[in-house]
Amino acid sequence: MPTIRDIARLAGVSVATVSRIINHSGKVRPETEKKVKQIIQETHYQPNQVARTLYQKRSKMIGIVVPNLNNTFYAQVIDGIQSVLQKNNYSALISFSTSSDGSKYLEAIDNFKNNNVDGIITSAFTPPANWNPTTPLVMYDSADIQDKIVRISSDNSKGGQESVKLIAKNVKKVLVQHWPLSLPTIRERVEAILKELNRQNIAYVLEEVSESDPYLAAQQALNKRNTFDAIITVNDPYAAEIIKEAKRRGVNIPKDFQLVGYDNNILCEYTDPTLSTIDQQPHLIGQTAATRLFKMMAGDTSTNNDIINVIPIKRNSTY
Amino acid sequence: MPTIRDIARLAGVSVATVSRIINHSGKVRPETEKKVKQIIQETHYQPNQVARTLYQKRSKMIGIVVPNLNNTFYAQVIDGIQSVLQKNNYSALISFSTSSDGSKYLEAIDNFKNNNVDGIITSAFTPPANWNPTTPLVMYDSADIQDKIVRISSDNSKGGQESVKLIAKNVKKVLVQHWPLSLPTIRERVEAILKELNRQNIAYVLEEVSESDPYLAAQQALNKRNTFDAIITVNDPYAAEIIKEAKRRGVNIPKDFQLVGYDNNILCEYTDPTLSTIDQQPHLIGQTAATRLFKMMAGDTSTNNDIINVIPIKRNSTY
Repeated sequence: MPTIRDIARLAGVSVATVSRIINHSGKVRPETEKKVKQIIQETHYQPNQVARTLYQKRSKMIGIVVPNLNNTFYAQVIDGIQSVLQKNNYSALISFSTSSDGSKYLEAIDNFKNNNVDGIITSAFTPPANWNPTTPLVMYDSADIQDKIVRISSDNSKGGQESVKLIAKNVKKVLVQHWPLSLPTIRERVEAILKELNRQNIAYVLEEVSESDPYLAAQQALNKRNTFDAIITVNDPYAAEIIKEAKRRGVNIPKDFQLVGYDNNILCEYTDPTLSTIDQQPHLIGQTAATRLFKMMAGDTSTNNDIINVIPIKRNSTY
Repeated sequence: MPTIRDIARLAGVSVATVSRIINHSGKVRPETEKKVKQIIQETHYQPNQVARTLYQKRSKMIGIVVPNLNNTFYAQVIDGIQSVLQKNNYSALISFSTSSDGSKYLEAIDNFKNNNVDGIITSAFTPPANWNPTTPLVMYDSADIQDKIVRISSDNSKGGQESVKLIAKNVKKVLVQHWPLSLPTIRERVEAILKELNRQNIAYVLEEVSESDPYLAAQQALNKRNTFDAIITVNDPYAAEIIKEAKRRGVNIPKDFQLVGYDNNILCEYTDPTLSTIDQQPHLIGQTAATRLFKMMAGDTSTNNDIINVIPIKRNSTY
């Protein structure tokens, strides 16, 4: 394999001149450029990306932190990010943060910096006070918190409100299952649910459920099923588990109680009954995060958040 | 930020000595090592991964090509790969090949090489004759083809045979839906299906279906539903679509016909009836691919393929 030095020697020019031609940066005489390009072609020279990084300070890599891929929500966010990276000829360095521990995120971000990524897109975590990411960084799946971090938030308030509207017909009392309110996105959504329930004068009971065990949450819901006539639950896999358990117990949805999930997971179309839910548009979240990051990399310093619209989807688990 | 030169100057040693200490390579006097480590700690020096790559010829990055993440099969393969990378302190550079076009794969692999990855794990594609990947490379989701490429194959023959066994009770004629037989993994599976059907003297009809439209495939199946009493279809989303369409038409599964999918997708648990299927153990496929790659990176030159066992899962769509 020829090196950049070989090309320079064969063309009778300096290494810096070859570099300028490869990287389309700085002025070079047209005759020189033509000559160098011809030699590059003849020798099948391939510029080494790592060496180019040291020259250019651009790696053309983005670091992405994602909690896991088994949740199709995140898979679709990545798909959205990827669609923007591809157009810009960027690669994705991906790190999986299997823990919600903030220090794991900081570790992944440090590792990205050591690989000279040009920017970082991470799922939400709570950084230390006054933390300043020295590399352009966008946080997705975040609550709408006002600070110096650029956040891409789902419209959790509208999501909560629309969940209530989906089950509001003929309803007297609602079971609201939720993850810990210490999670900012959950707090935003649950606050909006309660506000809308109060506005419509609908009674409710709140129940915190396990973050890892939808089966247990379904048992808990069905065990007290005579005390409510609708369930708003944390997401679609939790709702699908309730549908399964209801069938096992001979309980009819929506006749005995209505049910609404969250996310518009592929499951919703195939459960019986099909599942009413809220679509967070994860592909658009990913696209928006990446588009925003490229703006920051080009010098944009604004720190306002982007709020992504949510769409209620009415199916057969609600009236 | 201090550089490696600063550390060397402060410690009164050469840059090469600092490098040896950082990279745990070569001998250094214990007193020198202690002194340099102390200075590294005091100055909060972080070795730059890109610069280390040029020194060490190791980037500690693996390139992964994946068709897409919307299919949970691939998400689980990545998860399995990731579990091995994490243990070895490696990062994943991921490229999405949205096309089955071989040249797209070669492009992604070239891009990985430019980023100096230490190894590559790619989903199956057909490379040019006598293609020699100069970087250690493992192919997953591949047929069991004997050549110089290390392939991780699912046991497609057993998968085909077990599909038949799942529907073999009281069956007279089977509809076998499949993707084009030009795909080597499909060919392996369908050949085993036909062999087992013949062995058991069960009549069948073969039908090639669209690779992108499970809805259309479900219509085609239901339109001729009086001609068979079992369906073996391409994968679980295709089977879920058949369940949905059967319900719409008032057809009962398994009473009117039995149905078996492929992959053990999360959908299988939530359809009504639940879906019998074949589990390919995608997490194990990913783990095996990564473990094998690390062996190759350590000098192993064997080219035999690894065959991953499949597991039939009996649920309520079959007797």
